[in-house]
Amino acid sequence: MMDEMSKNLRMPGMEMMDMAVLQACMDACSACEQACTICSMQRMDCAPACMNCADMAGTMMRGMMRMQGMTPAVMMAMLDACAAMCQYAMDKCMDHADMSEVCRMCAQACRACMDACAAMRESMMKQAS
Amino acid sequence: MMDEMSKNLRMPGMEMMDMAVLQACMDACSACEQACTICSMQRMDCAPACMNCADMAGTMMRGMMRMQGMTPAVMMAMLDACAAMCQYAMDKCMDHADMSEVCRMCAQACRACMDACAAMRESMMKQAS
Amino acid sequence: MMDEMSKNLRMPGMEMMDMAVLQACMDACSACEQACTICSMQRMDCAPACMNCADMAGTMMRGMMRMQGMTPAVMMAMLDACAAMCQYAMDKCMDHADMSEVCRMCAQACRACMDACAAMRESMMKQAS
Amino acid sequence: MMDEMSKNLRMPGMEMMDMAVLQACMDACSACEQACTICSMQRMDCAPACMNCADMAGTMMRGMMRMQGMTPAVMMAMLDACAAMCQYAMDKCMDHADMSEVCRMCAQACRACMDACAAMRESMMKQAS
Repeated sequence: MMDEMSKNLRMPGMEMMDMAVLQACMDACSACEQACTICSMQRMDCAPACMNCADMAGTMMRGMMRMQGMTPAVMMAMLDACAAMCQYAMDKCMDHADMSEVCRMCAQACRACMDACAAMRESMMKQAS
Repeated sequence: MMDEMSKNLRMPGMEMMDMAVLQACMDACSACEQACTICSMQRMDCAPACMNCADMAGTMMRGMMRMQGMTPAVMMAMLDACAAMCQYAMDKCMDHADMSEVCRMCAQACRACMDACAAMRESMMKQAS
Repeated sequence: MMDEMSKNLRMPGMEMMDMAVLQACMDACSACEQACTICSMQRMDCAPACMNCADMAGTMMRGMMRMQGMTPAVMMAMLDACAAMCQYAMDKCMDHADMSEVCRMCAQACRACMDACAAMRESMMKQAS
Repeated sequence: MMDEMSKNLRMPGMEMMDMAVLQACMDACSACEQACTICSMQRMDCAPACMNCADMAGTMMRGMMRMQGMTPAVMMAMLDACAAMCQYAMDKCMDHADMSEVCRMCAQACRACMDACAAMRESMMKQAS
């Protein structure tokens, strides 16, 4: 159903958008928010980074859902911020991935989100050029 | 992966919890948050209710993921609030479900979330007794 | 400025509202969200409760700012949920208020928010009757 | 009280931080989130931008409160994203500032937040060099 709802999304100044890449990025943000929220409950030393990452990933996801209230330049700045946040949370979780199965899975979700944000950015650059 | 991460969730004062009901409720909250976020972009007269519903459903989902920082009584109060909010957003969307396909789908997501919150509450009552 | 902006807030089914009580409740929710966010960084055992409380208090504040997308019944259910969440976070913080100055201040902010939610609820009951 | 709580904030890789600039930036983010939330209730054509701006400003504020879960590079990327989002919401609100007192005040709050994010970024650059 969400695919059907999001197919109407449009951004000012961006005629075309790769909807498969967009949907994948929204899904990755959602999964990252959830993984980081659960991971932060362990109160290991990745928790502060994971709380920030959950927050940023959620805001990123909603931003894509509200892209008519964005410009390409703003969205790219947010994608950069989200990817940077994901990388830091991933690094912190990887430090004890061998001690915690939850951290290992959280690091995976952070990497997937970081990669999806990079793919989204690249797709926007291609459309813009 | 999320199923695997969430299987470790525990709440103080609640020995057992039906994890299938919990997972279904978290999923319904997530879908409701997303549907309401997209729906509010239409700026129809359901928008204020949908913005509130998106916010509450997101907080509810994260609350279930952080249930070790809850009690059964607090969670039940939140489930009541979330279900009430969902019902109101659903009603507002249904007022123009024939004019907007997005509203029709949003109303469905709100109903599913309302029902999932009620099922979660019932499941907790049964475990507690 | 915020006082001036919020003076236009209206709720369907609620002719009159005590704007001083409303403003005090929004302010208490905002302060509680901030205190709980900072407190959760300590990763003490109140952290899960404080993360939940920050989330709920933020949603409560925004809900009051979007009260035209609410009904009195929905808002009262949310006020109950928020007050219950505040009480739990306050109790958890008070457990080590002597060990942490931050927990002591966080517990104060939680109590103020709980009291403000109760006052808001009472004020709405009075207007409705 | 919040000033007292936030004085203990520390970021890895950032020995010193201008706490007055930080506090001003958190306050401006909080005010911007609130103004944009109220403004979006008007359902004027700035609403989508204001919803995004409220969300990003809130995440930015909490990110500063959780700065031990950040690096200077991540925070600067977030400050850039927040400032860009504020500028866009401000521009959208200014388009009908003469029609809506709320938009005029919201545009002011967005500008103050944008300026505070720029000042915070500059302050961090100075400390880092």
